[in-house]
Amino acid sequence: MADAHLSPEEFRRQGHRIIDWIADYWDRLDDLPVRAQVAPGEVAGALPASAPELPEPFDALLHDLDEVVLPGITHWQHPRFFAYFPANSSPAAILADLISSGLGAQGMIWATSPALTEVEQVVLDWLGEALGLPEAFRSGGPGGGVIQDTASTATFTALLAALHRATGGSARADGVTPDLRVYASSQAHSSLTKAVIMSGLGEQALRVIPVDPRTQAMRVDILAATLEEDVAAGLRPVLVLAAAGTTSTGALDDVGTIGALARQYGAWLHVDAAWAGVAAVCPEHRQAPEGVAEYADSFVTNPHKWLLTTFDCSAFWVRDRAPLLGALSLLPEYLRNPASESGAVADLRDWHPQLGRRFRALKLWAVLRSYGISGLQAHIRGGVALATRFADLVRADDRFELVTEPVLGLVVFRLRSGDEETLRLMESLNDSGVAYLSHTVVEGRTAIRLAVGSWRTRAEDVERTWQALSERAGSG
Amino acid sequence: MADAHLSPEEFRRQGHRIIDWIADYWDRLDDLPVRAQVAPGEVAGALPASAPELPEPFDALLHDLDEVVLPGITHWQHPRFFAYFPANSSPAAILADLISSGLGAQGMIWATSPALTEVEQVVLDWLGEALGLPEAFRSGGPGGGVIQDTASTATFTALLAALHRATGGSARADGVTPDLRVYASSQAHSSLTKAVIMSGLGEQALRVIPVDPRTQAMRVDILAATLEEDVAAGLRPVLVLAAAGTTSTGALDDVGTIGALARQYGAWLHVDAAWAGVAAVCPEHRQAPEGVAEYADSFVTNPHKWLLTTFDCSAFWVRDRAPLLGALSLLPEYLRNPASESGAVADLRDWHPQLGRRFRALKLWAVLRSYGISGLQAHIRGGVALATRFADLVRADDRFELVTEPVLGLVVFRLRSGDEETLRLMESLNDSGVAYLSHTVVEGRTAIRLAVGSWRTRAEDVERTWQALSERAGSG
Repeated sequence: MADAHLSPEEFRRQGHRIIDWIADYWDRLDDLPVRAQVAPGEVAGALPASAPELPEPFDALLHDLDEVVLPGITHWQHPRFFAYFPANSSPAAILADLISSGLGAQGMIWATSPALTEVEQVVLDWLGEALGLPEAFRSGGPGGGVIQDTASTATFTALLAALHRATGGSARADGVTPDLRVYASSQAHSSLTKAVIMSGLGEQALRVIPVDPRTQAMRVDILAATLEEDVAAGLRPVLVLAAAGTTSTGALDDVGTIGALARQYGAWLHVDAAWAGVAAVCPEHRQAPEGVAEYADSFVTNPHKWLLTTFDCSAFWVRDRAPLLGALSLLPEYLRNPASESGAVADLRDWHPQLGRRFRALKLWAVLRSYGISGLQAHIRGGVALATRFADLVRADDRFELVTEPVLGLVVFRLRSGDEETLRLMESLNDSGVAYLSHTVVEGRTAIRLAVGSWRTRAEDVERTWQALSERAGSG
Repeated sequence: MADAHLSPEEFRRQGHRIIDWIADYWDRLDDLPVRAQVAPGEVAGALPASAPELPEPFDALLHDLDEVVLPGITHWQHPRFFAYFPANSSPAAILADLISSGLGAQGMIWATSPALTEVEQVVLDWLGEALGLPEAFRSGGPGGGVIQDTASTATFTALLAALHRATGGSARADGVTPDLRVYASSQAHSSLTKAVIMSGLGEQALRVIPVDPRTQAMRVDILAATLEEDVAAGLRPVLVLAAAGTTSTGALDDVGTIGALARQYGAWLHVDAAWAGVAAVCPEHRQAPEGVAEYADSFVTNPHKWLLTTFDCSAFWVRDRAPLLGALSLLPEYLRNPASESGAVADLRDWHPQLGRRFRALKLWAVLRSYGISGLQAHIRGGVALATRFADLVRADDRFELVTEPVLGLVVFRLRSGDEETLRLMESLNDSGVAYLSHTVVEGRTAIRLAVGSWRTRAEDVERTWQALSERAGSG
């Protein structure tokens, strides 16, 4: 076998250099435009048409990283990145994930690296406890947790388990049928639509329930009526998704009422708390804990959003793992082994669509230990405080208005003067590179979203962003 | 926002230390048992029941890494790891992925980090060219490539695109119907079964075509007859999977004949070359290039298996991206942007089930540049040569027999004395920690698989493994 191009000595040398490159990169973020300023094709056009025939020194890659790649990067770790939702890396998570790469272990089944599975189970038990999730979600009970790549995959997995339960396994054996229905509000994440498509139900199976115009939360009365009508028409409710923090405005559905309805009609309750769920490390920021405790069949939240754990790390729990394993377990001959057959271990490849899986639990373990619960609470509370400060600035300026009440680290606001003016203001700020925000439309009105949560954001970053907006807003 | 627990200085210090820890870990691998020797629950039992309230020093994590985690790791980067398929990390890939973590960029759409999308497209064009894949698979044409997490996801994605094409979009809108059929050999990877379940078709939709007992390749005559019968019965062929290197024995289906049949019946041809596909960097190791060039609608191979690119990195190409985008595109308001609407850019979240995606192309870029095509060829040829050497040793020993002809880096063999003896021999070796192999069953007979491909494997590792097997085999 050929020697690796990077000798052990060169790996150490370049590795130290890259660690320093990253630390330096974070230091100079403040001076970089947040949003990439390149045109379509600019990065690709700067690269050769073919791979090199001969090895290149690693220095050449680092040169192109600075010259070609960086100008095309929108800096998600920038202290004034406020678009979408935060996607925090953190020093602890990065270093632990580096260890995972060095180990290069594959945890598709327990036997292929027992520590990978067991640390993951323990760490999800820790996180579940820290978030106040019900005991049933722990690995020692009937349910358990698993790290998924994204909340999209988690929601899809929840749907597969729900289909298995609702059909008594016939979906797996014979396929889905056109009478199966899925329910969520108009503000639910687009990943549910994708899940409904991928599961073979088709978009027709998705009942989109309107929201209250003020709170943007699901109209539970309409959900109740829809469920009743559907069942009367011979249709079968499979899953209801309750959003605990929507993407657009952070709206919180009434999880308890929705859960009771789901249970009444035999549907699976999936709680999508992809963004807001991790805020539950602070008891005062738990979204609908009673509803979750009583009714949630599954729950997803993303430590890779607001909880400092480098992408990808989406935490997914189920109350009862039986329908999940029933939906997805497969045991080809080459994966048979005594540990799996003993029933004493979990084989996590049965908990998600993929087979292969890396040691992602290391980075979540590192975050929970390096910050401690108290450090994570400080991180979340800091973000909420900054968002609250920003919302106060908006409230105090007559040219602006809040479109919805701020939720945790998310502020949704607009110029009173109109939609176009609002969008133009945001684009002007984004073009300037000073900060980066994204937009949404709420009840037909264009709004700007400011989502605080980066580990690098300080009060002065929020102030400076407000100042830049204020200057550009003119007379409003 | 709270300060990160690891200060910049501490990040540098611990980062340098972890780089060294990894290099040292690789150095001492030779002395570690390949397979973890822990019992179920042993790792979990050594960890506290709850996350710490207060921050812990990073040193505490590293202590537990050595004391608790390492004994529970099966060392996939060990020079005598020969089980399943290799899952190579490499110094170049690890360092580039570390940069990706430091950037923490999210590439769900082009606009959220243009370089992430464009480097990925360029690098997949490079790899496609290096593997001799057809021009149509390049990003400048009607098709293109994307990095998926695993071949399981790639195959599922191929099925979703195929369903979209076969049903003219009605699967997406109205759901799948019970008349749709998918075809693969009995030796196809279990991920196709999982895909058929997840897509809502159900296991009933999968036509399992027998294989030739000698070659373990699909019986194309039976495929032809099955397609004919199905169409005559009013059923609709959606997708045929041709395996270019099965998991069990590395068998190669007749891609050209299967492709011609797929085309005749209007079905999508998906070529699953998850393991063997990367060997095509060597022209002499291209599996069925004409069949792929002529007929493949999609193709998957995993650089994270044999091509030195740390998990996860599964390369997936389609000949025509229209049905893929038709199946999976969604555009919620908060992701609308001028670049996407111009049509000048690719939004890669439409190319797979997930929404979020990290900058995985960096590590593949680093591998292609650090090794160069010539270095990758040397790596593949080195693995093939070692497997050939091992097969010669098996052939020369009357107690053993080859079960199938060796394919690339994979040797499938057994003790002539019987199934139990064969399994016992493998378990004895695995228990010893000297090497790690896995088993399969071929035509009802138990066999041992030796898959060469680690970047750390040398001739002496293969010799030593053979010696250990030979000693344990007794009189056969």
